[in-house]
Amino acid sequence: MIDLVALDADDTLWHNEPLFTSRREQFCALLARYEPDGVAEDRLYEVEMQNLRHFGYGVKGFVLSMIETAVEMTGGRLDGTDVRTIIDWGREMLAGPINLLDGVADAVESLARDYPVILVTKGDLLDQETKLARSGLGGLFKGIEIVSEKNAPVYRKVMARYAVQPDRFVMVGNSLRSDILPAVEAGAHAVYVPYEMSWVHERVPDEALGGASFHRIAHIRELPALLKQLETLSRGV
Amino acid sequence: MIDLVALDADDTLWHNEPLFTSRREQFCALLARYEPDGVAEDRLYEVEMQNLRHFGYGVKGFVLSMIETAVEMTGGRLDGTDVRTIIDWGREMLAGPINLLDGVADAVESLARDYPVILVTKGDLLDQETKLARSGLGGLFKGIEIVSEKNAPVYRKVMARYAVQPDRFVMVGNSLRSDILPAVEAGAHAVYVPYEMSWVHERVPDEALGGASFHRIAHIRELPALLKQLETLSRGV
Repeated sequence: MIDLVALDADDTLWHNEPLFTSRREQFCALLARYEPDGVAEDRLYEVEMQNLRHFGYGVKGFVLSMIETAVEMTGGRLDGTDVRTIIDWGREMLAGPINLLDGVADAVESLARDYPVILVTKGDLLDQETKLARSGLGGLFKGIEIVSEKNAPVYRKVMARYAVQPDRFVMVGNSLRSDILPAVEAGAHAVYVPYEMSWVHERVPDEALGGASFHRIAHIRELPALLKQLETLSRGV
Repeated sequence: MIDLVALDADDTLWHNEPLFTSRREQFCALLARYEPDGVAEDRLYEVEMQNLRHFGYGVKGFVLSMIETAVEMTGGRLDGTDVRTIIDWGREMLAGPINLLDGVADAVESLARDYPVILVTKGDLLDQETKLARSGLGGLFKGIEIVSEKNAPVYRKVMARYAVQPDRFVMVGNSLRSDILPAVEAGAHAVYVPYEMSWVHERVPDEALGGASFHRIAHIRELPALLKQLETLSRGV
């Protein structure tokens, strides 16, 4: 039996990584005006990784890392108007329309009829809250858990908070690193719904998957039927 | 009877506003090198207010607002190394030592012996989590609620989450605007512990206090005794 279904947000419910990817491309184009031979994308990723423990995930940290990378790669020659441009990108990312993945609204509505559904997501608190509000799906969720990192202890905390046993908890998301492996480690069921692209940081090499046991579906549309199937199996029918 | 005690964090448990105040001063000094007659502090506050709905509360939004203000006030002449300096300030603010207010450790330990105690705070998720961890007080709290805004609906949600009635919930903090008035509006008890300084944004004019009924103590040290007194009163002894 399933007592609680938890859904990831970015690139599981709505498109997110393409927003970052296109800004990364714009960023590289901007820097190419100063340093035609620079490798801005790699350096940006390094700066983002260094800043992760201070800034966490989300748009604000991304913007700060872009500015820092740009100052560094231009040796301080970065024009103030370009700094302003980068900050404007951030504001646009934070205020832009939410593009739901195909079939998400129907799938979440269907799930919410049968189970309590919660959202479990990383990122900036305010940003994730307003995205959920703008998505129009907010009313379908029993709870929203915005967390600074997704690892097994965090999943255990979420399960404890909702007083649900691991074998009755299902985590659904597009990131093996954040949604699937740590949920499995915490004893929960996990359903992997791959997205068309993923941030380097979220990727997991095949060999790191070890013997982790999880479900994989091609589309969130298949989720309600998969959960029914799981329930039937667990009842031994 | 009291079923749950909620404490604010910044400037209630540890010193926070002085960190921002001293950075604002450094920021004004930095800008005075470009614009000796500028009124950087006022303009920074305006930019912060405009950015609040996008960036929310916290250090990252503060840093982005400083950079934006600086670019604007220098007409784009801002030097890249000064941008870097401002980002470094942010990282220092996020990683610096936590200075507990005098008497806080004893007071929270005493409270935690008698009641479940939770933390309710605004700001960046990761920043507030790591501050609590660095404070050494983390183990005393039954829960941590990091919220994007403190208003009456948010306090109602927190109370619902912990299944506590408003008249058995006490909110304690240094901000009339964020900790006291909205908690009172939500039907809870509130204890105001003024701090030596407050951000303009958190100030409330006397006339806006209306007839709100709350307790005021000079020091968090007095909190355990006040709560005992409230319990005695509510038992009609």
